[in-house]
Amino acid sequence: MKTGSDIKFAGRLNAFKIGAEAYWPGKNKITTIDLLTRAATAGLNAADLNYPDHFADVSMQDLKHLFQDQQIVLNGLAMRYYTNPGFKLGAFTNPDPTVRRAAIDETKAGLDALAELGGSLMTLWMGQDGFDYSFQADYSKIWDDTVQAIAEVADHNPDIEIALEYKPNEPRAFALMPDGATTLLALKEIGRANTGVTLDFAHVLYADEMPAFAASLIARHSKLLGVHLNDGYGKWDNGLMVAAVHPIQTVELLVELQRLNYHGALYFDTFPDHSGLDPVAEAQSNIAAIHKLLPIAARLADKCRFAAGDCPARCAQCDAHRSGQPLRMTRLCVLGALHWDVLVQAPNLPQRDETVRGSEVAYDFGGKGGNQAVSAQRNGAETYFVGRLGQDEFGKSLLRVLLRVWLGSVAIAARCRGQWDERSDPGDGRRIRRGDRL
Amino acid sequence: MKTGSDIKFAGRLNAFKIGAEAYWPGKNKITTIDLLTRAATAGLNAADLNYPDHFADVSMQDLKHLFQDQQIVLNGLAMRYYTNPGFKLGAFTNPDPTVRRAAIDETKAGLDALAELGGSLMTLWMGQDGFDYSFQADYSKIWDDTVQAIAEVADHNPDIEIALEYKPNEPRAFALMPDGATTLLALKEIGRANTGVTLDFAHVLYADEMPAFAASLIARHSKLLGVHLNDGYGKWDNGLMVAAVHPIQTVELLVELQRLNYHGALYFDTFPDHSGLDPVAEAQSNIAAIHKLLPIAARLADKCRFAAGDCPARCAQCDAHRSGQPLRMTRLCVLGALHWDVLVQAPNLPQRDETVRGSEVAYDFGGKGGNQAVSAQRNGAETYFVGRLGQDEFGKSLLRVLLRVWLGSVAIAARCRGQWDERSDPGDGRRIRRGDRL
Amino acid sequence: MKTGSDIKFAGRLNAFKIGAEAYWPGKNKITTIDLLTRAATAGLNAADLNYPDHFADVSMQDLKHLFQDQQIVLNGLAMRYYTNPGFKLGAFTNPDPTVRRAAIDETKAGLDALAELGGSLMTLWMGQDGFDYSFQADYSKIWDDTVQAIAEVADHNPDIEIALEYKPNEPRAFALMPDGATTLLALKEIGRANTGVTLDFAHVLYADEMPAFAASLIARHSKLLGVHLNDGYGKWDNGLMVAAVHPIQTVELLVELQRLNYHGALYFDTFPDHSGLDPVAEAQSNIAAIHKLLPIAARLADKCRFAAGDCPARCAQCDAHRSGQPLRMTRLCVLGALHWDVLVQAPNLPQRDETVRGSEVAYDFGGKGGNQAVSAQRNGAETYFVGRLGQDEFGKSLLRVLLRVWLGSVAIAARCRGQWDERSDPGDGRRIRRGDRL
Amino acid sequence: MKTGSDIKFAGRLNAFKIGAEAYWPGKNKITTIDLLTRAATAGLNAADLNYPDHFADVSMQDLKHLFQDQQIVLNGLAMRYYTNPGFKLGAFTNPDPTVRRAAIDETKAGLDALAELGGSLMTLWMGQDGFDYSFQADYSKIWDDTVQAIAEVADHNPDIEIALEYKPNEPRAFALMPDGATTLLALKEIGRANTGVTLDFAHVLYADEMPAFAASLIARHSKLLGVHLNDGYGKWDNGLMVAAVHPIQTVELLVELQRLNYHGALYFDTFPDHSGLDPVAEAQSNIAAIHKLLPIAARLADKCRFAAGDCPARCAQCDAHRSGQPLRMTRLCVLGALHWDVLVQAPNLPQRDETVRGSEVAYDFGGKGGNQAVSAQRNGAETYFVGRLGQDEFGKSLLRVLLRVWLGSVAIAARCRGQWDERSDPGDGRRIRRGDRL
Repeated sequence: MKTGSDIKFAGRLNAFKIGAEAYWPGKNKITTIDLLTRAATAGLNAADLNYPDHFADVSMQDLKHLFQDQQIVLNGLAMRYYTNPGFKLGAFTNPDPTVRRAAIDETKAGLDALAELGGSLMTLWMGQDGFDYSFQADYSKIWDDTVQAIAEVADHNPDIEIALEYKPNEPRAFALMPDGATTLLALKEIGRANTGVTLDFAHVLYADEMPAFAASLIARHSKLLGVHLNDGYGKWDNGLMVAAVHPIQTVELLVELQRLNYHGALYFDTFPDHSGLDPVAEAQSNIAAIHKLLPIAARLADKCRFAAGDCPARCAQCDAHRSGQPLRMTRLCVLGALHWDVLVQAPNLPQRDETVRGSEVAYDFGGKGGNQAVSAQRNGAETYFVGRLGQDEFGKSLLRVLLRVWLGSVAIAARCRGQWDERSDPGDGRRIRRGDRL
Repeated sequence: MKTGSDIKFAGRLNAFKIGAEAYWPGKNKITTIDLLTRAATAGLNAADLNYPDHFADVSMQDLKHLFQDQQIVLNGLAMRYYTNPGFKLGAFTNPDPTVRRAAIDETKAGLDALAELGGSLMTLWMGQDGFDYSFQADYSKIWDDTVQAIAEVADHNPDIEIALEYKPNEPRAFALMPDGATTLLALKEIGRANTGVTLDFAHVLYADEMPAFAASLIARHSKLLGVHLNDGYGKWDNGLMVAAVHPIQTVELLVELQRLNYHGALYFDTFPDHSGLDPVAEAQSNIAAIHKLLPIAARLADKCRFAAGDCPARCAQCDAHRSGQPLRMTRLCVLGALHWDVLVQAPNLPQRDETVRGSEVAYDFGGKGGNQAVSAQRNGAETYFVGRLGQDEFGKSLLRVLLRVWLGSVAIAARCRGQWDERSDPGDGRRIRRGDRL
Repeated sequence: MKTGSDIKFAGRLNAFKIGAEAYWPGKNKITTIDLLTRAATAGLNAADLNYPDHFADVSMQDLKHLFQDQQIVLNGLAMRYYTNPGFKLGAFTNPDPTVRRAAIDETKAGLDALAELGGSLMTLWMGQDGFDYSFQADYSKIWDDTVQAIAEVADHNPDIEIALEYKPNEPRAFALMPDGATTLLALKEIGRANTGVTLDFAHVLYADEMPAFAASLIARHSKLLGVHLNDGYGKWDNGLMVAAVHPIQTVELLVELQRLNYHGALYFDTFPDHSGLDPVAEAQSNIAAIHKLLPIAARLADKCRFAAGDCPARCAQCDAHRSGQPLRMTRLCVLGALHWDVLVQAPNLPQRDETVRGSEVAYDFGGKGGNQAVSAQRNGAETYFVGRLGQDEFGKSLLRVLLRVWLGSVAIAARCRGQWDERSDPGDGRRIRRGDRL
Repeated sequence: MKTGSDIKFAGRLNAFKIGAEAYWPGKNKITTIDLLTRAATAGLNAADLNYPDHFADVSMQDLKHLFQDQQIVLNGLAMRYYTNPGFKLGAFTNPDPTVRRAAIDETKAGLDALAELGGSLMTLWMGQDGFDYSFQADYSKIWDDTVQAIAEVADHNPDIEIALEYKPNEPRAFALMPDGATTLLALKEIGRANTGVTLDFAHVLYADEMPAFAASLIARHSKLLGVHLNDGYGKWDNGLMVAAVHPIQTVELLVELQRLNYHGALYFDTFPDHSGLDPVAEAQSNIAAIHKLLPIAARLADKCRFAAGDCPARCAQCDAHRSGQPLRMTRLCVLGALHWDVLVQAPNLPQRDETVRGSEVAYDFGGKGGNQAVSAQRNGAETYFVGRLGQDEFGKSLLRVLLRVWLGSVAIAARCRGQWDERSDPGDGRRIRRGDRL
């Protein structure tokens, strides 16, 4: 994933209609060009247009000129079936073949418009395709119809990538494509190289998925073509500002995007409309959030990449880790010292014979031997430790630290107890006794 | 609650815009009168109008004439704040006092229109009053503002009843009035006699409430002024046809309405729009469902009232039932033996003089008297037992079994202890002593 | 799916521990045999045992004897990882390879026990495999580990079918296998013929899926090996009695099971424990519910099968329907009469000159031409109609009926308007005028 | 709320059973004293004991000694009805009066034990009191019974405070006390001074409430007696570590606690059990999170207190704000300058004739007049502004800033447009024209 000034930021264009009367005093008609121009003032440098809605009041010529100016570039188009009353019972899932045909044809027209504008990403959120009632849909048939329709659409222009965006409910009680995995199953049947998935953070929460896991699963079985950032509480499709509720889960998703080398736009699919917020300030806040969280994610991605084993250099350690096997040097026995560093905050270093009053005390785990053993274990070696501990509280807490390194992994932790522990090893059943050879 | 042909059935008027072009071919403007007329064809005999939306294209004079014709009568009005962009951040909860004033004034205008039409029920769904983000709202202040606003509105015309309709989410992430109990707390502070609650079945499911319990709680702490019937899956405000998902919970609500003697309209707050269904057929289906379920509810209300013991006649059976006492054959005293069956697993029955080694021992409760007492108690009789028990471990465990049979009913169990137990009876406080007459 | 007395009914064996002390007075140890025997008294004729829990206190020999008696037969086994503290952080997803190995080995031991008992279905609910926190799991690795583990388990005994049971939450915050589609994606990677899915009704509701759609998707991409029936409110894994909340959705699932020719057991995965209900009465109630709903489902399956196009005879009409294409005779123009049948309830047919007072009037759509057109359209032909209608209310309502036939499909409906309508056809843009040739 | 080292931190004692075999090698029975001792090593300085469970294996004498040692003090007791099979169908809501009596008596015994230990807080989570099915409960009666039971319990010892803890689901499908507001309604009926509410963060999320709003509502209608911190995803009662998912909402709750002057313990009601985490490390992480978030909350509480108007000094400004009225000086017209401050980061101030290269540019809204107008408006005055703006980009953005100050308050914002704007004022309908007197 790109970082810094290279990132493509896009936003929900219709949010920029909010407060139109104050922003464009006296303007009787707000055009797509107006919306794009206002969005650019917020720092958004890319845009998705809805088809056909955003093409109603503007000529292709004007759009081309605008995008050539590069203040804002075209990220892609998104089809808007659900605003068409004829598609209420479904577009690709409509029981009427004529309606299905109309939906396919309209999508192809959208692809043609996209190609003419030089774009290459078409997002399909098929919100109207689903069912409300038991016995309303022939599940097998609406699935077939959808698979066929998307395959035909994908074949219309293989240079354009088709991204399916999923969401569990609304407007239909059940969407045909409610979650990531169902969408991936459909894509397998569709079997076209120019297809993939768009992940929307708030949809993912609503679908009870963890965003980074969803991204990982999508990348595994298809392609992650688009990312819609926003936030919510998981009980509805809230469309709140980025990281307003789940900053940690947002960072985890950004880490995953880095690892997946995602290079598409970050599209803010937010609804400042719900609170009547200023859409420019809201978009700026989203951009600022990303600029704040992305460096954190970058650091974590670097650090974790090794742990995940997908090091591009594919070094021996990584390979070993990836395969779930311990490192080559599988067994390590550390002999050495353990101690607690006692750190006292003080106004100055005590001079000779000076007594300086400290204000705070901190304890830190230390000792060359202990530090090495912990690091080796954390990096995947099966580590044993031989050392000497006092019977006082310091000794006990040192032991607890060692045990904690193997948190959730008692079997291995126990192997590290060395001479001071004679309990039976819960990992492999052996007892390690004082004097035993490891 | 009324039954049969007396019931007032109302419906969401805007649903009757669906398929307008087919229904009113060539008509360029669908007025409120048109919608009312179409709704009446479905069998709806009452209507709620939205204020101010439904008054935009029609004169008060025309509305009065229409309602006088009695094909369809006025049930009440519902305010529609959330369609006004000025109220997006809140109507009664808006941080701007000018906006709050505007919301109050508009509500008063609605009350005046309602009075002019001879109606007496105003429903307030304050969908825009709430918050989306932490730190967005001063909770204490928006609560105060809302309480004051509704009190002022209620005082404007004491002859009109103000019904608050609650819903957890949408459009705001959190509504100020998300559930029944919060609404009741607000009503306590508002403290006006002409206020109450409107219960919406799908909102109730979304709020994770059981509809009949919600109705019961509302009636206990305020008044149930309106009932919106529909259905859903509890994950969104689906607005499906009545009983399409929860027929049993719908019947239970109808039973509760009968008991509460609810005499208001049944308003179908459904969205055939989501599937593009024919609104006339959909409304007919809702009416048909009620006609099917209401007789069932009526029977259960009669039957269950007895079970619940709140029979107005307070007949003997009801009293007995209410007091938790068993029916007519109320008391039984068993005299007889108790013992433990000792069952030993063995390869064969021992022959004469043979010693067979058993592999497992099992104990089973037995004795003709004990078995009879247990069975009688299980079948509802108030059972006493007189017998003799040793003071050894077997005696104690037999006693424990007897006590345990009445698990959840220690009081009665204790009555069965007869002469061998001198502990105070936890049921009614009497002590039963050796030699006592039962 | 089997019907009537052939159905295998199984139930959650541990439910039969409820009230054990009253049911088995004085018994100091309740064994698996006891539970099976009590379950059989409820009418359950098949059982799933948990491995290893249910094998702790009983010999294989005793189990074999019991199942040979045929009062209750073995349906299969279910692994119980989550009761083992060592698997809390995951069984197949545990970061420690030693623990993963232990989980695999224990599963193989379970398969061996199952084979020895002559069974062929092993259910894996991997409740402990998932994650609670962001950054807790390496999603890619835990997925790989799970796929490898299940593949190895499946290979251990190809005669036994491995059914994965999914559930979104609890005990882990997110399950690795939270829903049907994710499970199907995993099964595709596992790629073993002896694998499939077990659908649990309450899990499906909790996962925001429609049960019949879930079954359909499972059958499409893998095999439906097990069905757990129960009910709930979708906000938690309630485990209520069958059809206590969603009778209609239960029937729809039963219809789907009939179509899929499901022949496995119906397992009642309910928790009478939550209310402390009598487990025998509860199981009887579940069986009774199925006996009530199954005949309804059978009728609907027959009726709908044609509509769904999967007629076993594969007649021309079915084929056409299945392929989503209209019938061969694609265009049909009906010329003929339309009228309303006016049906009057009367005590007798009027004799010559007799005036008979009717008690009720019903109207029915009629006319040979209209009936034919409606039927043809409903059966898939693109139908036009030419007829003559009066301008009175009867004419208008006849027109409405015709339009309603194409409910949600205005495009085609409009083609049927014939001579009385001159509006432009919203379906294909042509205008049909008086005298036009169709 | 206390800060720093004075805070009472308590935790779920049973979590400290995790890994007992490794922590207490060879110990065959883990007593309450053991759990308390281990909890203290994590830094927890207060404890809640469950009654009667935690009193089974320990003498009152031993507990008193332990708490007198002050390593860990007693925070309070919590009743544990739901572990008693006799209470499955309900404790206070049980249809059997004998069982209800037993529940009340057991609670009183708990109160006596609490009094003996010198404590004063009893928490009641009535998890078993509720219903699973329609028609299972007589809602009115179980409510009455619960109100009476708690009143009796509260009267048993007026020196002890009774805190009701609510949660929507589990183990019963619906709890009688599912959310804050329902609990408050019950407390109003109970009408005892020594009663209040315990708020559990994850329960609150599960109940679809915003934690700070819940706390505010509780304080308004009753007393906030206990706070359980943890986190979750709102789809289940996850019991995750503090701030692991909702750090912002946690801070907002802490701000509210400061304002409410909450002085009780912070109890970590977490389940490291779900992942098998080290409970000591987990508790330390919770304490560390609070130490990190509390200073942030303290700053925000100070800052926001003024805004909320509950300034303890009750100065004029606060009073005005609190009452929702604008400040005394209601109308203000500012004449003055507006400009953008252009701030350039540079290594030093340029010396005479020196050209210094700046590294970053920032723009800030400025101008004495503009700053005054914005501040006045923000502080509640109805502010007008008269000034002069260029027609260039700077002029436009200055205008936007002004408009944004009144974000969500278009009515007033428009009044501030002064001479440069001739649009009609959307607030009161007047048009402000060049040269108009305000």
